[in-house]
Amino acid sequence: MSEPLFERLALIGVGLIGSSIARAARACGAARTIVATARSAATRRRAAELELADEVAATNGAAVKDADLVIVCVPVGQCGAVAAEIGPHLREGAIVSDVGSVKAQVARDMAPHLPAGIHFVPAHPVAGTEYSGPDAGFAELFVNRWCILTPPEHADPAAVERLSAFWQALGSSVETMSAEHHDLVLAITSHVPHLIAYTIVGTADDLEAVTRSEVMKFSAGGFRDFTRIAASDPTMWRDVFLANREAVLEMLGRFNEDLAALARAIRWADGDALFDLFTRTRAVRRGIVELGQDSGAPDFGRTHAPLPLAPLPRPYAADGE
Amino acid sequence: MSEPLFERLALIGVGLIGSSIARAARACGAARTIVATARSAATRRRAAELELADEVAATNGAAVKDADLVIVCVPVGQCGAVAAEIGPHLREGAIVSDVGSVKAQVARDMAPHLPAGIHFVPAHPVAGTEYSGPDAGFAELFVNRWCILTPPEHADPAAVERLSAFWQALGSSVETMSAEHHDLVLAITSHVPHLIAYTIVGTADDLEAVTRSEVMKFSAGGFRDFTRIAASDPTMWRDVFLANREAVLEMLGRFNEDLAALARAIRWADGDALFDLFTRTRAVRRGIVELGQDSGAPDFGRTHAPLPLAPLPRPYAADGE
Repeated sequence: MSEPLFERLALIGVGLIGSSIARAARACGAARTIVATARSAATRRRAAELELADEVAATNGAAVKDADLVIVCVPVGQCGAVAAEIGPHLREGAIVSDVGSVKAQVARDMAPHLPAGIHFVPAHPVAGTEYSGPDAGFAELFVNRWCILTPPEHADPAAVERLSAFWQALGSSVETMSAEHHDLVLAITSHVPHLIAYTIVGTADDLEAVTRSEVMKFSAGGFRDFTRIAASDPTMWRDVFLANREAVLEMLGRFNEDLAALARAIRWADGDALFDLFTRTRAVRRGIVELGQDSGAPDFGRTHAPLPLAPLPRPYAADGE
Repeated sequence: MSEPLFERLALIGVGLIGSSIARAARACGAARTIVATARSAATRRRAAELELADEVAATNGAAVKDADLVIVCVPVGQCGAVAAEIGPHLREGAIVSDVGSVKAQVARDMAPHLPAGIHFVPAHPVAGTEYSGPDAGFAELFVNRWCILTPPEHADPAAVERLSAFWQALGSSVETMSAEHHDLVLAITSHVPHLIAYTIVGTADDLEAVTRSEVMKFSAGGFRDFTRIAASDPTMWRDVFLANREAVLEMLGRFNEDLAALARAIRWADGDALFDLFTRTRAVRRGIVELGQDSGAPDFGRTHAPLPLAPLPRPYAADGE
């Protein structure tokens, strides 16, 4: 890239997402200067040690000074308070964005604190891992992922386009939709999946008849897949469910109806109903792999150790007993 | 291995599991001769082309002739019929086993057809991928996985030990338990996880407000993890749910209670209840990784493409608008 898209990028929060933006923006030269900050002194120190940014600011207000792009990368429950802190310090004409997994509530929380002359363009990069904190980030996190922008109705098209160019520079595809529609889409593609993963892991952990040790040993039968997203950051996810309550409960209601129908099919031995659903769901997987949103390698490409060549515990006669 | 554990291994069915056993047993020399068969002529031809076995038999009866180990590798709903077919052809003293994900019902289906003098030792290797068929198998599938044996009460300890040695030669750890306990353990670690994965993928696919294209594009937020196991073999899984009905419905009932409690916590904004569960579930993930039952690499070790270095769509002024 010849000229950076932004002169001064301010990142409020350097967890998995914030620190990945810092690394990616530096790697592709999307911002001339990157300034980062974090709530705790320990995280700010770590950000400095990792050299995530050109400057590490001590306060949110100091971080946004003179920035032409500010991205708030904190759990959605804290976005309103951060907006209140940075509001008075924002440069005229700056773009303010975020990375929250919920958009309508976050926009309601942030917008009142942002002065006129600021371009507020909420965003959600649909990417992540089960790890958190400044050490967990990496520059490639957003490559081939989608970033959803939910600009308010009267947003400046030039500001939306500049933010879109920023996310494209980080490797993402960009799509624009209303905050309300985003929250419905994410409720089914992300929030309810996390909720049921957390639930089944908790259910398994509470059993008396099956020990925790058994649950873990025999987890390769499917359970372990759920434990990955059930290991995601508790603060982030508590905030997501509270902020997207209506859409989550609506999608959860549909899931519950469908699960009840399947339970009934099992109870009454309706094998055809089971078989039909199990066939249909294969097509969705195929579509996701074809879209490049997951690997087609078996088992997510998990590696397998080679066969052991060690001698067996004790000799056996070749001809049986 | 100096001497093979078995003279003649017969595999009835060469799908993912059967063909993996064939490959693994050959690689580690656990059987001197391997004979395989399959219901359909096309699959038998494919088994021959892949050279999965030393011999491909045309019928189940012919396959088991003179075998000292017979492993039935077909969907659990077909195990009884296969036992009836092979019963009259089994060699005195042979060990008959299976690989079914349900043990009590399968034992009830198979045992009546096996003559005296046969050692019936049901087994379940807890391993697999979302793919099926003879091409999907590989020799390392069972390495570092558990194989659960559920020998009947009066099983010959020497036969149990020989089968155990076979699975260890294929790289597995072996544990023995009752069929009933197995079915409870697998209901929570495998069957209910598959059921809810199938359900959520079906629910997402049925929405009017969110398109299938949106579900697939934004699946990296969590949903795509569920689509992998929801792409598993429909016949196999229909049979599993029908054969393990009681345990599945029992575990599903518990899951539903816990999910209802979480939904209530969301509705009433009880953030502490959410946070507490989300913290507890992390420990289970950690345990699974420490046990070597999953990779600790972020995102299952999915790979990421590098950042694009292509020029941006159009030039932007460096100092903003």
